[in-house]
Amino acid sequence: MSDAVCMVSGGLDSCVTAAVAHSRGLPLAFLHVNYGQLTAARELRAFNEIADHYQVSERFVADPTHLRKMGGSALTDPSIALPEGALDQEGIPVSYVPFRNANLLSIATSWAEVLQARFIYIGAVQEDSSGYPDCRESFFEAFNAVIEEGTKPDTSIEIVTPLIHLSKKEIVEKGVALKVPFHLTWSCYKEEEIACGLCDSCLLRLRGFQQAELHDPLPYRVSTRISVK
Amino acid sequence: MSDAVCMVSGGLDSCVTAAVAHSRGLPLAFLHVNYGQLTAARELRAFNEIADHYQVSERFVADPTHLRKMGGSALTDPSIALPEGALDQEGIPVSYVPFRNANLLSIATSWAEVLQARFIYIGAVQEDSSGYPDCRESFFEAFNAVIEEGTKPDTSIEIVTPLIHLSKKEIVEKGVALKVPFHLTWSCYKEEEIACGLCDSCLLRLRGFQQAELHDPLPYRVSTRISVK
Repeated sequence: MSDAVCMVSGGLDSCVTAAVAHSRGLPLAFLHVNYGQLTAARELRAFNEIADHYQVSERFVADPTHLRKMGGSALTDPSIALPEGALDQEGIPVSYVPFRNANLLSIATSWAEVLQARFIYIGAVQEDSSGYPDCRESFFEAFNAVIEEGTKPDTSIEIVTPLIHLSKKEIVEKGVALKVPFHLTWSCYKEEEIACGLCDSCLLRLRGFQQAELHDPLPYRVSTRISVK
Repeated sequence: MSDAVCMVSGGLDSCVTAAVAHSRGLPLAFLHVNYGQLTAARELRAFNEIADHYQVSERFVADPTHLRKMGGSALTDPSIALPEGALDQEGIPVSYVPFRNANLLSIATSWAEVLQARFIYIGAVQEDSSGYPDCRESFFEAFNAVIEEGTKPDTSIEIVTPLIHLSKKEIVEKGVALKVPFHLTWSCYKEEEIACGLCDSCLLRLRGFQQAELHDPLPYRVSTRISVK
């Protein structure tokens, strides 16, 4: 029996989130979703290594290829260029995958209902994220209402977002406190061998470690210090 | 440009729903979802024949295989027997696919956002359906709130459920009024050549035609008259 389905992309935030669920003593099930992102193979490796670390045997890898086939995002369509060094720009970034998190949470809820799990842990971050609309607390509150309406009467599943109001710095610090295996995680949107150090995801991660005055154990192709705001 | 994404399973309800959207003069896009249901090949054929009928060229077939891999339903797991002649039983039927409609609507919303469509038409029926929790109007209202929260600020997509409060009899009558090609649709959960006439879906459909005092053009293996309540 698993009490909590953890969504584990393999990135820093999802690993710290899994560590939070683990620290609460919940029997865990790990869910990974390959939606055609460019670094899918590297992320799947990170997922399995993190699952090994926490000794989670209940694992599910979903492959909703429709998000790739539909396109509409720089994460899934190679013809749309990923920006470099573009943190703090206005508007929704081109890496936004249309309504991605609703697809991911629907998969997680279906699995949680089959497993009779009570919680879904997801490492979404509202404040210090890239401005994706489906990463805001109000989105998850609305989705909890959909779960309440759309599942069996005796099903009770709640989405838990332990990082939602943390900064990247605070996430790194929480990870340190929970002994998170940072070296097993992968955040880069572009590369699979050595992180690029230039995409939004690398920049956010590097800034978080820098602000926490800690060293990121991952190797980077470019790792110049970035301006801390 | 498509204004309305129509979810077309290939069944009676989805075909009447597409006819409603067509009658409103909306440029249409047809979405079919193969989630591993036993009659997937027959339903896909119905989808394409209905799309041909309405001359819809914008088509998308999504294949979220995770619902099949997770199981938990008689529609996706051959080891769970489908009931026969079991209409009007209490509780959620074993054909319930956990949180299926949220998965389907998430796919539809992603596609609608890519297409910049304004509406998603779905042929859900609350009253005369099989008691699925994710077919109730309150579920779709909750999902509309998730779309509002989880898509770009300039995206405006609304789920439309023109059949939600109709009985099967009324759906058949509406289909007649809209000249729906009933002969192209497929409703049976079990068979792909000749409809079984015994599963919930066949029984509901047969009862609808019977109450409307009309002949269903599909051939049935068993087509004894059923008691009309």
